Amino acid sequence: MTYTIKEIAASLGAEAFGDVDLSVGGVAEPAMAGPQDLALAMKPDFAKGLPQGQAQAAMLWQGADWQQLGLKAAIIAPRPRFAMAGLSAMMDPGQGYAAGIHPSAVIDPAAKLGADVSVGPLSVISAGAVIGDGSVIGPQCFIGTDTVLGQGCFLREGVKIGARVRIGDSFIAQPGATVGGDGFSFVTPEESNIEKVRDSLGDAGEAKAQSYARIHSVGSVSIGDDVELGANACIDRGTVRDTRIGNGVKFDNLAQIGHNVEIGNDCLICAQVGIAGSTRIGHNVVLGGQTGVSDNLFIGDHVITGGATKVLANVPAGRVMLGYPAMKMETHIEVYKGLRRLPRLFRDVAKLQKAVSNPGGND
Amino acid sequence: MTYTIKEIAASLGAEAFGDVDLSVGGVAEPAMAGPQDLALAMKPDFAKGLPQGQAQAAMLWQGADWQQLGLKAAIIAPRPRFAMAGLSAMMDPGQGYAAGIHPSAVIDPAAKLGADVSVGPLSVISAGAVIGDGSVIGPQCFIGTDTVLGQGCFLREGVKIGARVRIGDSFIAQPGATVGGDGFSFVTPEESNIEKVRDSLGDAGEAKAQSYARIHSVGSVSIGDDVELGANACIDRGTVRDTRIGNGVKFDNLAQIGHNVEIGNDCLICAQVGIAGSTRIGHNVVLGGQTGVSDNLFIGDHVITGGATKVLANVPAGRVMLGYPAMKMETHIEVYKGLRRLPRLFRDVAKLQKAVSNPGGND
Amino acid sequence: MTYTIKEIAASLGAEAFGDVDLSVGGVAEPAMAGPQDLALAMKPDFAKGLPQGQAQAAMLWQGADWQQLGLKAAIIAPRPRFAMAGLSAMMDPGQGYAAGIHPSAVIDPAAKLGADVSVGPLSVISAGAVIGDGSVIGPQCFIGTDTVLGQGCFLREGVKIGARVRIGDSFIAQPGATVGGDGFSFVTPEESNIEKVRDSLGDAGEAKAQSYARIHSVGSVSIGDDVELGANACIDRGTVRDTRIGNGVKFDNLAQIGHNVEIGNDCLICAQVGIAGSTRIGHNVVLGGQTGVSDNLFIGDHVITGGATKVLANVPAGRVMLGYPAMKMETHIEVYKGLRRLPRLFRDVAKLQKAVSNPGGND
Repeated sequence: MTYTIKEIAASLGAEAFGDVDLSVGGVAEPAMAGPQDLALAMKPDFAKGLPQGQAQAAMLWQGADWQQLGLKAAIIAPRPRFAMAGLSAMMDPGQGYAAGIHPSAVIDPAAKLGADVSVGPLSVISAGAVIGDGSVIGPQCFIGTDTVLGQGCFLREGVKIGARVRIGDSFIAQPGATVGGDGFSFVTPEESNIEKVRDSLGDAGEAKAQSYARIHSVGSVSIGDDVELGANACIDRGTVRDTRIGNGVKFDNLAQIGHNVEIGNDCLICAQVGIAGSTRIGHNVVLGGQTGVSDNLFIGDHVITGGATKVLANVPAGRVMLGYPAMKMETHIEVYKGLRRLPRLFRDVAKLQKAVSNPGGND
Repeated sequence: MTYTIKEIAASLGAEAFGDVDLSVGGVAEPAMAGPQDLALAMKPDFAKGLPQGQAQAAMLWQGADWQQLGLKAAIIAPRPRFAMAGLSAMMDPGQGYAAGIHPSAVIDPAAKLGADVSVGPLSVISAGAVIGDGSVIGPQCFIGTDTVLGQGCFLREGVKIGARVRIGDSFIAQPGATVGGDGFSFVTPEESNIEKVRDSLGDAGEAKAQSYARIHSVGSVSIGDDVELGANACIDRGTVRDTRIGNGVKFDNLAQIGHNVEIGNDCLICAQVGIAGSTRIGHNVVLGGQTGVSDNLFIGDHVITGGATKVLANVPAGRVMLGYPAMKMETHIEVYKGLRRLPRLFRDVAKLQKAVSNPGGND
Repeated sequence: MTYTIKEIAASLGAEAFGDVDLSVGGVAEPAMAGPQDLALAMKPDFAKGLPQGQAQAAMLWQGADWQQLGLKAAIIAPRPRFAMAGLSAMMDPGQGYAAGIHPSAVIDPAAKLGADVSVGPLSVISAGAVIGDGSVIGPQCFIGTDTVLGQGCFLREGVKIGARVRIGDSFIAQPGATVGGDGFSFVTPEESNIEKVRDSLGDAGEAKAQSYARIHSVGSVSIGDDVELGANACIDRGTVRDTRIGNGVKFDNLAQIGHNVEIGNDCLICAQVGIAGSTRIGHNVVLGGQTGVSDNLFIGDHVITGGATKVLANVPAGRVMLGYPAMKMETHIEVYKGLRRLPRLFRDVAKLQKAVSNPGGND
């Protein structure tokens, strides 16, 4: 698939310069670009590689002089990073899954597939499942009993979705992602040590050996439109009602969403984040990679956590948090500066003690 | 499936009130309950939703006045959280897997399946595998060579169990869980930097580029009865002997158990916990979400770690730990209070220095 | 398969003693060894178990007196830990996968399989894929369109490799590992709060609700020779160019490698490590379990991080790091000593303040 510079610029709402009828078939870093590639040099620094490559056209930063860079054509977008979304979608060669229903797929006669649905080899679609128009179920996927997927969904290889899950339109799931595992909910016949520690903050009292009884997850999972789920990520079903994910939420690989969790719209949940049971997350929240959020908390709208932040208490809307336990980012920066100067502080205080106990200094 | 209030109460060892012949077919939060649902209002706070819903019966807290709440019937259990175990088991609609052996499953003739075993579509059962009576092998699962599963096990979609693993009765595994991957064990021809650092605690000396040779995992994995393994969780095989998991241990999603690890009975290993190679965990231990435990350590019975605790040294029995590196919870709380007041402490010490060096204060 | 003591010693470059024609068929810990096992007692401490077991031969430490230990034969290697690599490879009973192409595998006619390639049951090999000689594709694996695997690779059950991935020789992947999921790259139409916070280090300004547009991963993944990937680990494809992994890199279970990451040769990436997008890792780096590395950083050669280190800034070559945020290990140890003495420091400073404000002490 090739596009002219004119076509690309029009599609991105960007400006085209030079020989706008030139065709390109891919994108590349400047130094690695072939003559058919659109080089990506959205910062002056990146343009240095252009002479090493063979690009005739490039996407450039605002104010770039494309002619001086030796190019035949150029595209300049008002917000280049945003233009990458449209450009990369046009240039994505995709996974090459064949269209149609593969004969090796196991599809229950009581499943309902919409128009133009594809099902890859060795996938399983269970009774009562409903797959919306134009959705692509990749190879070796599993769709559980009575589960509903919207239109235009795209499941990569080995995605597993349990029973009675409801998912909106345009859902994307990366390889090995799972939705609808049972929640992790166990209870001891008598009050357990964890319950005691939660009350006393530190003292478990006499320990008693008890086995755990399982609380089944009778709820399921509800997911809005335009949600993406990363590779080997997990979303658990709810205990009584559904675990609920809003619209436009993006989860990276190996994220873990516990039972009963509620997440608002347009959140970014980065890789290896864990959100424990019954926690509620607002809208437009960003949880950096390896963030952990304890159970039964509330995280307000527009909260951002830095990488590996461990949230052990509620966070009001708009806060930027970092650290373990999580603090406001500016507090964290100040505290950790102090931490590094701590050995010196001990020495200073020791000196002061000496000076004060022996004011004359003649020891 | 419906049950009368009387039947439910009897099964839970709870008391039934009112029209105990009333039937219910599900459980629901009070505000969302339909007329066929048993509303769950085990705390007075939860009862506020009853008027918004249509429940005629509810499970209530000790001392609740069910008539005043406008109900026709009620169940009151001595420990409502524990009653949820029995109640949720009764009400669980399950995954809807079909009984019997699906024709698309690939079962080696030298595998032995007990009575009433189900095998889902596109599952593989290898030569020498033994599956106990009444076990359900879900869709797209894998059971390795000579692996033994006990009775009444339940494997969700895509569970993978390698060769020569031994698992007891009533094992449950969530989607994508794996048992019996090879341990992560590599060695350099000469002493490596890691070995040097472990000895010197900080100085790697001259660095030398070396490649790693692989130590194969000749051992396997032994798992007791009543164990549950979360979605996409991993238990590695042992190097020489088996990695060993006791009875009643519950692992949440994405937990990682290294080679040679030994875990006692009735432990809770929460989501994204990692236990490194050869570490031993006692009985009735609870490791909070994202806890990490270094290799070759010993964690005593009844230890509890808070979320994201990073255990870098042995922990004696009964301790409640938090932080990175792990400290006793009360120490951690005191230390982190201090940490937040650290910037003020620096200011106080600066003032003291000034006062001591200039006692008159007339600068 | 059995070997004589002489054969084993020759293969390991070790010395054999006693009845070197004695045959053994496995390895075992001393106390659990049967008469056909080679007991592993590479430290004097381990030899204490020999009398409980039935071993006639053992692998011992330098200087051990095998006759006094009651053995008939012994092997002594100059670096016993390294000898374990060769010994465990000889003794590994393997996974028992059948050779050849299983009839249930779905292999596109446009895939090219080398000599002696095995493909397990219910695996999928896509059009244009090339599998090198002697490689073993285990059960239920997926190989994407135009993906190339070298010679002598070994994929365990359920490994998933997406389109256009290039992998060298002798690649090993544990159950459920995935290569070639899409990168996590999203952009808002206008500058987002995260971008603002990165500039201001703390102040997001007015929050605005925006949805995310997806940046597709047009690149793929390139992996060198002798790489191993742990169970349920994930390597994402690059945005424009490939994510790149050098030779001899070993990843443990649940590791997460973001888009555009570059990793040099002979690195150890332990379990649950996360490396965020576009970060570059040098050669011979060791990242301890649960280490996190932020995006767009550079980690020099021979760097070692302790367990759960969170790297938020570049690390020069040769450093040993620990903590969150990562510090040099000796600084971290000193700082955390101070942290534990912090409550006492507050008390000391309070006393000083009192002494200085009231020098006579007569309050």
